Amino acid sequence: MKVSKFGGSSLADGRQLQRVFDIIQADNARKVVVVSAPGKRFKDDTKVTDLLLAYAEGTIADTDTTEIVQTIKARYHAIGDYFDLPAYELADIDEQIDHLAKKHYRSFDYLYAAFAAHGEFLNAQLVAKVFTHLGLPARFVDPKEIGLRVDDHARSATFNPKSYDTIAKLDLTTSERLIVPGFFGYTENGDMATFSRGGSDITGAIMARGLSADLYENFTDVSAIYAVNPNIIDQPAAIKQMTYDEMRELSYAGFAVFHDEAIIPAIQGGIRINIKNTNDPDAPGTFIVPPTEVQQTAPVTGIANSNRFAALYLHRYLLNKEVGFTLRILEILKRHNISYEHMPSGIDDLTIIFDKTLLSQAQIDHMLADIAAEIKPDTLKWLPSYGIIMIVGEGMRNRIGALTEIVAPLKDQGISLQMVNQGASEISIMLGIQPDLADQAVKAIYHNIFTA
Amino acid sequence: MKVSKFGGSSLADGRQLQRVFDIIQADNARKVVVVSAPGKRFKDDTKVTDLLLAYAEGTIADTDTTEIVQTIKARYHAIGDYFDLPAYELADIDEQIDHLAKKHYRSFDYLYAAFAAHGEFLNAQLVAKVFTHLGLPARFVDPKEIGLRVDDHARSATFNPKSYDTIAKLDLTTSERLIVPGFFGYTENGDMATFSRGGSDITGAIMARGLSADLYENFTDVSAIYAVNPNIIDQPAAIKQMTYDEMRELSYAGFAVFHDEAIIPAIQGGIRINIKNTNDPDAPGTFIVPPTEVQQTAPVTGIANSNRFAALYLHRYLLNKEVGFTLRILEILKRHNISYEHMPSGIDDLTIIFDKTLLSQAQIDHMLADIAAEIKPDTLKWLPSYGIIMIVGEGMRNRIGALTEIVAPLKDQGISLQMVNQGASEISIMLGIQPDLADQAVKAIYHNIFTA
Repeated sequence: MKVSKFGGSSLADGRQLQRVFDIIQADNARKVVVVSAPGKRFKDDTKVTDLLLAYAEGTIADTDTTEIVQTIKARYHAIGDYFDLPAYELADIDEQIDHLAKKHYRSFDYLYAAFAAHGEFLNAQLVAKVFTHLGLPARFVDPKEIGLRVDDHARSATFNPKSYDTIAKLDLTTSERLIVPGFFGYTENGDMATFSRGGSDITGAIMARGLSADLYENFTDVSAIYAVNPNIIDQPAAIKQMTYDEMRELSYAGFAVFHDEAIIPAIQGGIRINIKNTNDPDAPGTFIVPPTEVQQTAPVTGIANSNRFAALYLHRYLLNKEVGFTLRILEILKRHNISYEHMPSGIDDLTIIFDKTLLSQAQIDHMLADIAAEIKPDTLKWLPSYGIIMIVGEGMRNRIGALTEIVAPLKDQGISLQMVNQGASEISIMLGIQPDLADQAVKAIYHNIFTA
Repeated sequence: MKVSKFGGSSLADGRQLQRVFDIIQADNARKVVVVSAPGKRFKDDTKVTDLLLAYAEGTIADTDTTEIVQTIKARYHAIGDYFDLPAYELADIDEQIDHLAKKHYRSFDYLYAAFAAHGEFLNAQLVAKVFTHLGLPARFVDPKEIGLRVDDHARSATFNPKSYDTIAKLDLTTSERLIVPGFFGYTENGDMATFSRGGSDITGAIMARGLSADLYENFTDVSAIYAVNPNIIDQPAAIKQMTYDEMRELSYAGFAVFHDEAIIPAIQGGIRINIKNTNDPDAPGTFIVPPTEVQQTAPVTGIANSNRFAALYLHRYLLNKEVGFTLRILEILKRHNISYEHMPSGIDDLTIIFDKTLLSQAQIDHMLADIAAEIKPDTLKWLPSYGIIMIVGEGMRNRIGALTEIVAPLKDQGISLQMVNQGASEISIMLGIQPDLADQAVKAIYHNIFTA
């Protein structure tokens, strides 16, 4: 049995949904289908989820939402009409869209969450209707029905692993395909709460694990995960197969194909993942598998880089003599609800690296002011942009000299490193670099390893 | 004006003290002399400080201390007799040794501190007597007289910077040489409290700063600080000159010539330091100077390695998603009064490096048990020995490719690295390595940089 998840671009319009239908019909093992909300049909199009968030804002502000509601309905209608779906089927969806603004919500956060979740919630209903209409019996499965429970962070919920027991009870002996909306679950109070954006990958992984699927197919719009960003290197090598840990490290540092957190249920259940292209379903794609399944390993599987980091540099003499010194800094961070990524230290220096997408300017200002006042460092610098390159490969485990092949080409290019962090993770090396040199550095490393 | 500090081996017996006398007499600028307690005269000899600690133990245990007291007195007598010092001068010192056991102390810690401090306290008195007897007028200066104040950590005291004002009042217009005992100061309550072992270097640096000396001469038993441990490399390059920060990084990672903390007063006062050899006083030795004084810099100044480190490795999925995760670990460390050195992290892994000389087995056991119970990591490993190599040089600031020259020879030797930490400090690169390969690695790096 396979769980097949389709991303927003694979479900953006009727033509795309036809391809999804063909893929599902072609293989009876594709029993459970997890769907995203309809995505962009062209470059400057708006995703249905974003339309719904605008609708939520209008509802809160009590402004006229007639136009946005029409736009949302039109997106679902366009798909239904493509397949000549009877009008009453679509009327049912329209009614739910209208009803959204009339319900009571525990908080604005839950309101936003419920509106956003309806992108998937309605799309899964529509897909079930279309499949059935096309002659492939399909049934919409509400996450409530299978007890897909999450904690009460309305818009960045965490899955409750106890739900696996109830998910496992889902009857798979039916002849119907089961269409499950991605991206959200229900809190103990029965409210809809969503994962972070892109969280349909997580739902797919949870379903695959809960149902002990043989394979978790993740359909997107690329034919493989590439060893490096195709915007930096023209026609880079495709990754045929990699381990869970490799995928995690790469997605952490910028590979956006597969959601960071979605890998965890797969790891825990030992579920193999296959990243595939809806528009090229015969291509083998990329397999993400347990480490035991990987035979031959190349030294490096992929090179990722990200510009979402910032850093704080701090210098104070005899810094490391003090028990509890870092503790005091971390208490300041916690006070402002700031999490950090890495903390390389010298004997009198400390660099703290942050994910700047998680920080507001106010948080940064308060943190810096408190550190200056309470820690009294000799030097305190804020680096608003800090380039991170991550070189990842199972083949680097105990591999001697991996670092030489990585830093030697940078020396040749005259690129200096701000930070090198190797050691905590056995399968990756992390480099800190001036952000405007990051692309050049990635090129130099890629060519030395993959094409030399 | 120069402050000249002499270590224990330079004052171990009369013959050595004669050399010290010749050095001081040869230069009228050598006004202030800071002395250690008499050290070892031969390989298996016992330092006077250790004899005094044994005397302290006997006193606490109320056992017969006659023999140890005789041994201590004999050490001072041997020096006095070498110069035919009158008997009444030594009787005064004998009396103070006897009196030590009769005084009241606030705690056992203060008792130990006072006994230990007397190694220097009595030796400074003896040196002043001997110099005067030899025709060079000299006066013993009790740290109490100049207000050398420390906090109340009896045996690892921290200097109170307010003392600089009182030290500055010491009259230097006298024709006498001023002999100051190293290693200890007085608490607010008037109790003797010592710095950590080897702390006479600190007293010398404090005096040099307090008196705005032109030079702080630190006399020891080597003619220079070498670029690498002479036990690993035969006849290594001598360091003619280095910066304060280079010295700090090197002493942190194993260079034992100069006390780690003694550099701080020198930095703050901009005092130049000259490490010299009592047995070869004409050799230029090694100068430790402000960075502005260094003209030409070699890429690497020195390579240190140390086996005093241990490490804890911890793995848990989604570790870095949690605000306050490291905070909880550091709270456990603080609960057991444990300080850590470095904390390199991957996305799901954390390595914490400790100075194991500061840890008891009980602390380690409690820490590991608490981390296992409260943090519930997927993997928790304790590495009782973790080799650290530090490559230090001002020339590495912004120097491109420094890392290549360091890691390439390791690759050639088939030595793999457990950790690479570059970045927090601009002038050093830290490597983590299997401890039994550390010497081999140091050799390979040294030869590539210094002799290639």
